[in-house]
Amino acid sequence: MQPKDIAKNTAKVVQDYLTYQAVKLIIDQLTETNPAEAIWLRQYSSGGKLQNGENYIDELMSELRGKQLVMRILAVRDDLAKQVLEYLPEMVGTSIKQANLEHRRRLLERLTQSSSEANNLDTELDANEPSDENK
Amino acid sequence: MQPKDIAKNTAKVVQDYLTYQAVKLIIDQLTETNPAEAIWLRQYSSGGKLQNGENYIDELMSELRGKQLVMRILAVRDDLAKQVLEYLPEMVGTSIKQANLEHRRRLLERLTQSSSEANNLDTELDANEPSDENK
Repeated sequence: MQPKDIAKNTAKVVQDYLTYQAVKLIIDQLTETNPAEAIWLRQYSSGGKLQNGENYIDELMSELRGKQLVMRILAVRDDLAKQVLEYLPEMVGTSIKQANLEHRRRLLERLTQSSSEANNLDTELDANEPSDENK
Repeated sequence: MQPKDIAKNTAKVVQDYLTYQAVKLIIDQLTETNPAEAIWLRQYSSGGKLQNGENYIDELMSELRGKQLVMRILAVRDDLAKQVLEYLPEMVGTSIKQANLEHRRRLLERLTQSSSEANNLDTELDANEPSDENK
């Protein structure tokens, strides 16, 4: 896959995730204001339907009570996008840098450990071998 | 969930996705240069292991041939991040705006359709009712 396609797919992953979070937020709000509607939306949204956000929204539209909910999901998702997207590159960039440092440190520890283990093993083998002097 | 937590979780989703794409890219490259290693890495990475990128990397480290692969995954992921992250906010923002327009258009179509269907139904019902004149 080309970097351009990877960028596109990453954008889709983010969009689907924001749709999922918007629905989750609305279910939480409805739990306070309209519990029956919250239960309905939670059940409707189960079973992996939210993995493709745009299909989910299209299908929800055909439900009797779906139209109002769709308008609300679009608004909340737009709002989340405005709050989240701006900081995303820096957050991910910093987090990857920190993770890389941490993984490289652990990798180095393992390499040092296994080379010192190998040395110990050599020493033990040497100790067990009858020395030339005793022959 | 607070917007701050949603931002954090979205960043993690992106990081995991870039890890997944890095591994996929390396498997593709290895298929050309070292098919046996490609098969090994593909099998090792199956079964949902890549859903948590950092755990996956940590576990791969303890494999005999994992250390080289880990170094390569970290480098490729870093590279992908540099190519993808900068454009991500604009790509997602534009895509959500377009999707919203499209969903709202379809919603309006449905509302117009169902109100004209309701009108037709009224007319049909009126037509089927015996008129007062015939009584």
